[in-house]
Amino acid sequence: LPSEGLFGPLLSTPALLEAVGDEAWVAAMLAFEGALARAEASLGLVPADAAEEISRVCAAGGIDPAAVGRGVAEAANPAIPLLREITARLPQDAAAHLHRGATSQDVVDTAAMLVSRDALGLVIGDLDAAVAAAAGLARAHRGTVMAGRTLLQQAVPITFGLKAAGWLVGLADARDGLLAVRADLAVQLGGAAGTLAPLGAGGAAVVGALATELGLAEPVLPWHSARGRVARLGATLAIATGSAAKVALDVALLMQTEVAEAGEPAAPGRGGSSAMPQKRNPVLAVEINAAARRSSALAGVLLGALAAEHERAAGGWQAEWETLRDLLLLAGGAAARIRETLAGLEVHPGRMRANLDAGGGVLLAERVSARLAGALGRTQAHERVAAAVRAATTGDGIAGGGFAGALAADPVVAAALEPGELTGLLDPAGYLGCTDAFIDRALERA
Amino acid sequence: LPSEGLFGPLLSTPALLEAVGDEAWVAAMLAFEGALARAEASLGLVPADAAEEISRVCAAGGIDPAAVGRGVAEAANPAIPLLREITARLPQDAAAHLHRGATSQDVVDTAAMLVSRDALGLVIGDLDAAVAAAAGLARAHRGTVMAGRTLLQQAVPITFGLKAAGWLVGLADARDGLLAVRADLAVQLGGAAGTLAPLGAGGAAVVGALATELGLAEPVLPWHSARGRVARLGATLAIATGSAAKVALDVALLMQTEVAEAGEPAAPGRGGSSAMPQKRNPVLAVEINAAARRSSALAGVLLGALAAEHERAAGGWQAEWETLRDLLLLAGGAAARIRETLAGLEVHPGRMRANLDAGGGVLLAERVSARLAGALGRTQAHERVAAAVRAATTGDGIAGGGFAGALAADPVVAAALEPGELTGLLDPAGYLGCTDAFIDRALERA
Amino acid sequence: LPSEGLFGPLLSTPALLEAVGDEAWVAAMLAFEGALARAEASLGLVPADAAEEISRVCAAGGIDPAAVGRGVAEAANPAIPLLREITARLPQDAAAHLHRGATSQDVVDTAAMLVSRDALGLVIGDLDAAVAAAAGLARAHRGTVMAGRTLLQQAVPITFGLKAAGWLVGLADARDGLLAVRADLAVQLGGAAGTLAPLGAGGAAVVGALATELGLAEPVLPWHSARGRVARLGATLAIATGSAAKVALDVALLMQTEVAEAGEPAAPGRGGSSAMPQKRNPVLAVEINAAARRSSALAGVLLGALAAEHERAAGGWQAEWETLRDLLLLAGGAAARIRETLAGLEVHPGRMRANLDAGGGVLLAERVSARLAGALGRTQAHERVAAAVRAATTGDGIAGGGFAGALAADPVVAAALEPGELTGLLDPAGYLGCTDAFIDRALERA
Amino acid sequence: LPSEGLFGPLLSTPALLEAVGDEAWVAAMLAFEGALARAEASLGLVPADAAEEISRVCAAGGIDPAAVGRGVAEAANPAIPLLREITARLPQDAAAHLHRGATSQDVVDTAAMLVSRDALGLVIGDLDAAVAAAAGLARAHRGTVMAGRTLLQQAVPITFGLKAAGWLVGLADARDGLLAVRADLAVQLGGAAGTLAPLGAGGAAVVGALATELGLAEPVLPWHSARGRVARLGATLAIATGSAAKVALDVALLMQTEVAEAGEPAAPGRGGSSAMPQKRNPVLAVEINAAARRSSALAGVLLGALAAEHERAAGGWQAEWETLRDLLLLAGGAAARIRETLAGLEVHPGRMRANLDAGGGVLLAERVSARLAGALGRTQAHERVAAAVRAATTGDGIAGGGFAGALAADPVVAAALEPGELTGLLDPAGYLGCTDAFIDRALERA
Repeated sequence: LPSEGLFGPLLSTPALLEAVGDEAWVAAMLAFEGALARAEASLGLVPADAAEEISRVCAAGGIDPAAVGRGVAEAANPAIPLLREITARLPQDAAAHLHRGATSQDVVDTAAMLVSRDALGLVIGDLDAAVAAAAGLARAHRGTVMAGRTLLQQAVPITFGLKAAGWLVGLADARDGLLAVRADLAVQLGGAAGTLAPLGAGGAAVVGALATELGLAEPVLPWHSARGRVARLGATLAIATGSAAKVALDVALLMQTEVAEAGEPAAPGRGGSSAMPQKRNPVLAVEINAAARRSSALAGVLLGALAAEHERAAGGWQAEWETLRDLLLLAGGAAARIRETLAGLEVHPGRMRANLDAGGGVLLAERVSARLAGALGRTQAHERVAAAVRAATTGDGIAGGGFAGALAADPVVAAALEPGELTGLLDPAGYLGCTDAFIDRALERA
Repeated sequence: LPSEGLFGPLLSTPALLEAVGDEAWVAAMLAFEGALARAEASLGLVPADAAEEISRVCAAGGIDPAAVGRGVAEAANPAIPLLREITARLPQDAAAHLHRGATSQDVVDTAAMLVSRDALGLVIGDLDAAVAAAAGLARAHRGTVMAGRTLLQQAVPITFGLKAAGWLVGLADARDGLLAVRADLAVQLGGAAGTLAPLGAGGAAVVGALATELGLAEPVLPWHSARGRVARLGATLAIATGSAAKVALDVALLMQTEVAEAGEPAAPGRGGSSAMPQKRNPVLAVEINAAARRSSALAGVLLGALAAEHERAAGGWQAEWETLRDLLLLAGGAAARIRETLAGLEVHPGRMRANLDAGGGVLLAERVSARLAGALGRTQAHERVAAAVRAATTGDGIAGGGFAGALAADPVVAAALEPGELTGLLDPAGYLGCTDAFIDRALERA
Repeated sequence: LPSEGLFGPLLSTPALLEAVGDEAWVAAMLAFEGALARAEASLGLVPADAAEEISRVCAAGGIDPAAVGRGVAEAANPAIPLLREITARLPQDAAAHLHRGATSQDVVDTAAMLVSRDALGLVIGDLDAAVAAAAGLARAHRGTVMAGRTLLQQAVPITFGLKAAGWLVGLADARDGLLAVRADLAVQLGGAAGTLAPLGAGGAAVVGALATELGLAEPVLPWHSARGRVARLGATLAIATGSAAKVALDVALLMQTEVAEAGEPAAPGRGGSSAMPQKRNPVLAVEINAAARRSSALAGVLLGALAAEHERAAGGWQAEWETLRDLLLLAGGAAARIRETLAGLEVHPGRMRANLDAGGGVLLAERVSARLAGALGRTQAHERVAAAVRAATTGDGIAGGGFAGALAADPVVAAALEPGELTGLLDPAGYLGCTDAFIDRALERA
Repeated sequence: LPSEGLFGPLLSTPALLEAVGDEAWVAAMLAFEGALARAEASLGLVPADAAEEISRVCAAGGIDPAAVGRGVAEAANPAIPLLREITARLPQDAAAHLHRGATSQDVVDTAAMLVSRDALGLVIGDLDAAVAAAAGLARAHRGTVMAGRTLLQQAVPITFGLKAAGWLVGLADARDGLLAVRADLAVQLGGAAGTLAPLGAGGAAVVGALATELGLAEPVLPWHSARGRVARLGATLAIATGSAAKVALDVALLMQTEVAEAGEPAAPGRGGSSAMPQKRNPVLAVEINAAARRSSALAGVLLGALAAEHERAAGGWQAEWETLRDLLLLAGGAAARIRETLAGLEVHPGRMRANLDAGGGVLLAERVSARLAGALGRTQAHERVAAAVRAATTGDGIAGGGFAGALAADPVVAAALEPGELTGLLDPAGYLGCTDAFIDRALERA
């Protein structure tokens, strides 16, 4: 089983490794051949008993992927060696009707669609749960004030609920993208060059019957060398992985020793160091990040495969299989990990508040400046507030506490404000704008 | 003008160069600031006369992109130097209301959407025309027999109409993808960290009003660090360019001296060589191919930017602008060239037939073998046909004419066929399967 | 064994699959731990008998990669679960000295270097043989005239020997690149954050002793977050694969049914089609092409990993392992296939000449024009030759034979030439310029 | 001038924009034509006075890149329209000798090498200075203790000098890579298909003379479709940009509000925010990061171009020019910015120490545990130290001060240590291992 390999589990999950593993591919190719025989039998193109035999052998499985793999390099695809294996298991009469009218690419492409469908089910399920978990965090921390950070610098206050709402929308969009490409997964059946010549004019009906058999969409045309479907699938998977990586990066940054505002859920043995007992490394986030790096590059292979030669590509198609498998593995790994991260995220509201307060209120400088602009004019207001910021700040970063004092010490500023007003102005909870409304909109989106 | 540069026109078009050029970006940023002022005025957040002043200055244009560019590196974005330029053109009163509540990313992201919308209009228009031209070819050459080719080898007969139908579907799918991402282009308005704090709880209404002003969608949330929208746009553009490159590759292959079945439309000076008077190089196809190579890679930059830090990314966002511009230029260049290619394609049915016939009918070997299988059994049929193929083929490729003779010379084969039947079996026009039906389906798709 | 998987053999070789397989990685990590113990014992930092015990257990192997793999996700690297396995096999006394001063990244990075060294040996060996085979072709076909083709159009004559010489130089350069990166493979030893603190100031000597033990270079500094070495390795592998793909693409194009100037070596079952007995697909070339597509993208993952956070990366490093493994597999697959291709290439000089002659000499138009320029002036010479080309060419491509006649029929041209001179001018073998000298230079390069 | 564009200066520098700008490309193409004429004249292949005329016109310049650009799309390269412009400026006699024996690709490839050489000079110069600045920091902060961080978590102590030494080595390696590819920049001269047929057997001498004229290397063969040279150049540029991005990422992370251990050099207007007076954004680091993202992807375009068709590529070559230009711009931008960053870096040793001390010594847990292992055995030592870490740590991160107390409170630990020993053990300056030796090695490397 690939799930027992050395690196396989690193960026994916056992369930995905099984869903896209060698056995699953062989089973999907067998499913194609069985369904094709049944579809053709239903249209009178293949004798019913032959179809039954083929169907039975294909359902029985038991074909060793390694046996197929040993022939894959000579054929440049796995269909030819697989057909040898199936044929060897069939009575000669039935064998004559196996794979009727089809070409190798019909088998492999349809199998890729079936494998993708099953794998996408797992990815979508995990993203659904991640969206739900993000919604839970958005609700629970609607009012948990923290520093908003832009370009890695503290900017203005937000709430952790709003941050979670942003995660929610990104993950929900990614999931919806996967739902759309899943609905577009289609059977492939065109024969050697897309005419279905061996089936005659009646071949088109077989495509429909096959689609029904397999629960895949019926394409307008055979798509042997029209690879938009695969390129879109790949890009959408990379977007899903990247959307998980956005959340993961935030979590890794929040987990920094000096920030410590959130933590990945603990698990036995996770993120420790044998030598450094104090270490609690981000693990899920790091693996998602690695997955996204690989995915962004791999999606380009599928984009490049769009330029396919004539009726079947001489290289681009053959580059798709392992690339698509990797993209599914990585998206599934990222989805499962972001689900686990969000479902068990440790949130430290006290530290969020402390980090915000460490700046002594300078995150509210924008607000104070706007408040003073009416009385002092925009320019003077800005200059006096900037001076107070400078007075409250040292070279080594923000020194806590001094901003309010520096403002109060400026007589012009003091005169322009109501008594006691400054305290309110410097309350981050009072400068959250549309945070509540935005959280509501995100929750509706979920 | 970028359209006058050295390499700019190589892979794009003057119209696209203008649509995504510096002036267009500056105009789009100005459009944001004007629309924001009007939207805020309509909600009572900015005085009507200030909004009018801002609107007027922004509509007037006349700001030199180079002046903005000189400040872009210090600010790490073009919004800050642009705002300096606008402010310098405004009365002080009105200036106080410019850009109210907004942040630099609001300007730049919204401008990117406006620029993309206009550029997408050009790309979609050219793809529409290319689809129509492909439909014309599919109709005109419904019965023009040629060799179908897989892995660059002749396989079985198709018609050129079916090949054009395949192009049609690929291009139509690409166009529909662009229509979908265009509908998703949304305004950006969140303020410093996505709360719209300076606008208070009423800020959310401004987002809607701004979207209406600019004719863009209203997003669920500010998407400063949720970059799925941009990543999808980039991938869809790369898919469009790649879909054009599929057609272009086919054309370049058909134009090979030894194939000569089709030719790019001639134009003065196009594809010639000063030294070699006989040369007629593919030019449009080569440029589309080059565009697709760049696009496949560039799309990955936008996928990688999904992992954005906190409330604004520290690098990924800044990598988007030139990347997106390039992707729009390349998609537009590819779309215009494939439109021109298809609208003026020279088709050589005689050469198509000659290349097919040069094999002496071996492309029908599949058909003959299937015909004989009933009488001789599948295995014997295949072996005798293969022997005839070998007899008719030399080491230097297919020798014309010999296949029919070799078949006729096999007494077992001869006995299994009706008199004269072989001629019919070897007629490629009789072995086209669902070609007609598939062409009809593709024409409906258009 | 990965060599028995479904897709593993498609683009690589059994030897490579073994060289970079799970067992090889585990063995390399064990080799690190054994060598570290010995190096430290030689410097008195670890008791000799403990080092002997550790060395013995590490040499014994027998650790199941899957057992390590089951812990890889929780640790985000394979070193921690591997150390658990080793510890379980050691007496407690010796276990206390295992992995002394080292960190997980020291193990994994050094193992990556060892695995790369062995895999590079295979790749380089195959490229050496491919270079030799190309040299053989260059020598054998020094005078085999064929059409030179630019932008897929026939241009001027070359010889097949010159084409092979170009392949030779490209492959030799690629091999030399790999030799250079192999010499740069270095041990990794820095401890938790690159100071080797647990070993004190004497730690630096351990690095040297370890490098000697393992036969790797000694780096200037620990390179935990300085990944230039790995990025260069990846890019150089992609260049090797791409250099093989240049040859493979030429072969696939030469194999086209309509060109038929060369053919991949035949092998039982290779490139056939069950349905189409006439088919002889390029297989090696197609697989090399697929490998190059994947490699070009994967190299970018390693380039992206250069931007590593502080003393150990949080994602980029973890994305390296499977990426590097893939790049080694693909380069090895491409090198073996191009070696086989070149060693057994079927060359069809007759067809080369026939394809050249099919143009009726128009490939010599450049030469005729230059010859006439002296007498007629450059412009008139070019115009008259171009007119003759046009006269000899139809819409469906080049019609054979007519060019000489068209030239002879132009009285001005006829008057400008010596009697009988035209025949010599139109002899492609007489218009080969520096071909001989260039072939000699390439052969010296080999 | 491109330096006046909107986005051009964002990720590059005015000097680079000029070095790779349209004017520079035109000048380089002119330099090729002039040098070719002189080289051919020196070998008697062109009359001396014609060569002088050509040389004069090419040196005079004054050709508008836009005029060339208007013809670039029809020709699919800039050489053909440029030759028209030159010809128009030459007497007819001299014009007949222009570009003698050369093909468009000879001009464009050689120009690319000349442009690259000049641009590389700038990049290398900035990297040299950056290396020197890093060496200065390594020397100045040899003993400035700070937290080493792995996976974004504090790990064990290092010094800032060691971090700078790591930067130094990475940048020096990148520079050396560029020096190597610069030495490999070669002239291109092969004529239409690499035989130099119009020059006869004497053509090979022209290549050498041309190389001498232009100060470029002489290649073994024309490399029209052997693109290893360009692929290596691109990858090496991306490695240089990525090596700068490693430093930039560290700086951006150190600049985080909560870390505040270093700061980019201040410059008027740099990194400010009009609305948030407290903001001091990383700007250089962000731009370098963006440059590296684009470079990693763009390098793949050049890797993909290795698979070139026959004697001249139909797409891959044409994709190189803008890609290479971008890679040079980005590497130059990154090199200049990292030079400026390192030369003016604000270092805050007090904050480094404070962040380290905030953990209360838990970064020394590894050391304490190792010290106790002799007395208590490895397992008990580790467990007791881990318990002390837990006691000193809260859910919201590390609570300062408690670790020493927790250790002292454990009677077994207390008994195992000498009186007062704990203070020494918890001194980070005493646990720096080979830091000094490593810094020395890095300084030697510089």
